[in-house]
Amino acid sequence: MSRRPPFPQQLVNAWAAQSSLLCVGLDPIPERFPNGVSRDPAGCFEFCRRIADAVADSVCAFKPQFAHFAALGAERELAELIAYLHDRHPHVPVILDAKRGDIGSTAERYAQEAFVRYDADAITVNPFLGPESLAPFLAWQDRGVVVLCRTSNPDSAWLQGSGSDTAPAYLKIAAAAAEWNRHGNVMLVTGATYPKELGRIRAVAPNVTLLVPGLGSQGGDLRASLAAGLDSRGRGLVFNVAREVLYAAEDETFEAAARNAAAMWRERIELCRADVRGL
Amino acid sequence: MSRRPPFPQQLVNAWAAQSSLLCVGLDPIPERFPNGVSRDPAGCFEFCRRIADAVADSVCAFKPQFAHFAALGAERELAELIAYLHDRHPHVPVILDAKRGDIGSTAERYAQEAFVRYDADAITVNPFLGPESLAPFLAWQDRGVVVLCRTSNPDSAWLQGSGSDTAPAYLKIAAAAAEWNRHGNVMLVTGATYPKELGRIRAVAPNVTLLVPGLGSQGGDLRASLAAGLDSRGRGLVFNVAREVLYAAEDETFEAAARNAAAMWRERIELCRADVRGL
Repeated sequence: MSRRPPFPQQLVNAWAAQSSLLCVGLDPIPERFPNGVSRDPAGCFEFCRRIADAVADSVCAFKPQFAHFAALGAERELAELIAYLHDRHPHVPVILDAKRGDIGSTAERYAQEAFVRYDADAITVNPFLGPESLAPFLAWQDRGVVVLCRTSNPDSAWLQGSGSDTAPAYLKIAAAAAEWNRHGNVMLVTGATYPKELGRIRAVAPNVTLLVPGLGSQGGDLRASLAAGLDSRGRGLVFNVAREVLYAAEDETFEAAARNAAAMWRERIELCRADVRGL
Repeated sequence: MSRRPPFPQQLVNAWAAQSSLLCVGLDPIPERFPNGVSRDPAGCFEFCRRIADAVADSVCAFKPQFAHFAALGAERELAELIAYLHDRHPHVPVILDAKRGDIGSTAERYAQEAFVRYDADAITVNPFLGPESLAPFLAWQDRGVVVLCRTSNPDSAWLQGSGSDTAPAYLKIAAAAAEWNRHGNVMLVTGATYPKELGRIRAVAPNVTLLVPGLGSQGGDLRASLAAGLDSRGRGLVFNVAREVLYAAEDETFEAAARNAAAMWRERIELCRADVRGL
């Protein structure tokens, strides 16, 4: 059995087939599960599976969040979930959000974990230890390597903005990512809460796809992010939304509520995208 | 059953009782296991258990490395190993090397993973997302929070050294760690390969214990690290050595070889420490 297409191809296909720049983050929080879904590893799998089935028509990617599984010892369920997504929604790439970062030989083990054990299409990585810590991931040319750059949280400038104003750390990362992107498989995490910085990143990395968290409760600016971040082909952005979709309702209507919320976010992004592009 | 003593107390006790600043990193690499130890999760547990038993007299801490277990799906064995260490070597704190780093609510899940699921005494964390990403770990006052600062690898200056020479990122982290260290449970990772930087970190964080990797094959400078890093009480340092101990021999003599290697490292550090202190 041949594997799935290379990650960048998956993403281009999904953008086109789904008409969507929306990624739904799968962050299972047992305390918020509706009645009838068990608050244990099996429930994590079931909840995420039902959410994914409900929202699949509206998304270009899924992003399961490692910590929410690991805290419960639900690694087997995480692997089962990714296998399920590949099987039922083969056109939707799966980004494992694990923010790994370690030196050479250890990073190789993390790449093994993400790409063999979990068979993720892409993984988020932390560049704090330098380029050599990312090389073992980049060696997997058919998988996506999603590098933290300027994250959406209030504190993100603390280290990411260190350096001079003309050469902050996050732009150094962005410029390096543009170099590493020979196979089109590198992405950068850039919060919608910092559209000005997002625009600076786009300027130094014109062909790198940006994974953009921070819409919804974090107050990120969709229009400004689109205006600053769309690439020359009018795409190049993936907006992650998690809780506003997963927990749109916390009762037995949760699947319908998630479906509606995802469809609404997809459409909101598409309308704003067309508007920004002057279409 | 009451839990173990607070992490800083464990470390002070272990330094004194063991006369050692040596931490042995537990990085199981199945390809290097001797014949008779299976190259699977069960073998990872067995190998680490036998190494730990062999070296326990020479160490002040154990540091299991998460990636080496996760790549093989050996989380259960990692949990069993930590439980075994607590049971058989209760005076030796266990630092889980997982380099976690994520925003608030997700970091809480990672703290849950480290301190509840695995019952580690301490965890390594990555500060790239800013202070709020570390707060959920710091809330566990009886556990150790070991913050990456200036790592031992050749690339570490890439981001860690960003900023001006007088105010590089790693010194910002060190100064913050000194603030966070009200309960004495914060540590900083500072490579023996950069003793000058280690000294600058010690200057801004005089009471923070430093976890120092990079001796052995990385070529770190033991004497310079001791001279720059010992605190006012002549301790405050934990030197991590992994492969030079674990794989001192890769045949059936591996336990004796590891025991000898750990004893040699312990003694080398102690002799150099006495010499540096002029005792």
